[in-house]
Amino acid sequence: MSLTLYELCGADDRRFSPYCWRIRMALAHKGLDPERVPVRFTEKDKIAFSGQKLVPVLVDGDTTVVDSFAIACYLDDAYPDRPTLFGKALGRSLSKFFMAWLNTEVQPGLLGLIIKDIHDHLDAPDQDYFRETRTQRFGRGLDEIQADRDQKIADFRKSLTPARNILADQKFLCGEEAAGADYFMFGTFQWAHTISPFVLLAEDDPVFAWRGRMLDLFDGLAAAEPGYPLA
Amino acid sequence: MSLTLYELCGADDRRFSPYCWRIRMALAHKGLDPERVPVRFTEKDKIAFSGQKLVPVLVDGDTTVVDSFAIACYLDDAYPDRPTLFGKALGRSLSKFFMAWLNTEVQPGLLGLIIKDIHDHLDAPDQDYFRETRTQRFGRGLDEIQADRDQKIADFRKSLTPARNILADQKFLCGEEAAGADYFMFGTFQWAHTISPFVLLAEDDPVFAWRGRMLDLFDGLAAAEPGYPLA
Repeated sequence: MSLTLYELCGADDRRFSPYCWRIRMALAHKGLDPERVPVRFTEKDKIAFSGQKLVPVLVDGDTTVVDSFAIACYLDDAYPDRPTLFGKALGRSLSKFFMAWLNTEVQPGLLGLIIKDIHDHLDAPDQDYFRETRTQRFGRGLDEIQADRDQKIADFRKSLTPARNILADQKFLCGEEAAGADYFMFGTFQWAHTISPFVLLAEDDPVFAWRGRMLDLFDGLAAAEPGYPLA
Repeated sequence: MSLTLYELCGADDRRFSPYCWRIRMALAHKGLDPERVPVRFTEKDKIAFSGQKLVPVLVDGDTTVVDSFAIACYLDDAYPDRPTLFGKALGRSLSKFFMAWLNTEVQPGLLGLIIKDIHDHLDAPDQDYFRETRTQRFGRGLDEIQADRDQKIADFRKSLTPARNILADQKFLCGEEAAGADYFMFGTFQWAHTISPFVLLAEDDPVFAWRGRMLDLFDGLAAAEPGYPLA
């Protein structure tokens, strides 16, 4: 079968598109060696047959595939006996990446929105402990950290962008069924839900709907716990 | 076997720790129903037996496991016949999340560092096209966008934090062997490497070493392409 990859090309045959490189390497991973056709920005007519204007475009015999992620999925589906791009043992490593993203890009921002609420929902000896350790850690009082949360909420919502993009298309982060990464991010939201009345998500946010599905899991295990209204 | 989960607890028995919720849900996913022991901030003596001071702590018969990710891995390993947290079909969904993270949190920042370099490595007709479309899109000239890259490089490096955390511990994002997510992020770096002399990574950055391993793959497939020095 003939295999052709249309790639963005600069001067001196420099192939620089990140999306084309994703597929160049994915093809190598699968042990496939395509003909590579350069396409300059002003040569979109070369890929007009694909019905759209973006590279990479892969043509495998009679099949034309566009969009780098769709091409990678196609390669795993069409060549299942070759090394997998997305399957098997990758789940744990990628879940670890997901957790690293959550811990560094999302949770610190959320803590700033609810830190005083956490304090207020502790027993008295723990309140003293929490106030002292956190005031020392952040160099500011808990009231002060939380004071401008009406402004900071926009940053928190923005930090969820990658998850939101996924949840706009599918029920759970892990696909049709919830699994590890979903529980990780749900933990982040339960942290707030159990102790803070502050509304975190707009009701039309795909993440809002996802949180509702998570609360319903296991016969409403999490929904049965004490928590503040979500909207 | 007895199964016990030590959870952080506030006033009125509110269990709010995000890490404990991760494991509470993971246990439900596995169909396991642990005894749940509340631990207040000032009650760390309750988990002194675990040799450290953080919840969650899981005790499964004679086995004590700490750290939420390690506990989730333990549950998948110890109860392989129950629904998996990290295995099988999750790879594609999580790879999609990884791609969403890359596309929204990393690539836009990188574009600002190399946009004029891209222009300079295009053939003349493409230079005109690129300058016009990008100037219109960003409302600024290419020179101006790229001018302060010595300042903006810190933000770009910071955006890589979740990947850096993973690569500090393992060879590739996907584990011991490169796969889909590695090629995605490598594409981002090749975008710059092929057309820009600007140094993106410090040599002691785990991401720097990872990029070197990626360049070596497939008998140096990517290293054989034209590119600027990396350090």
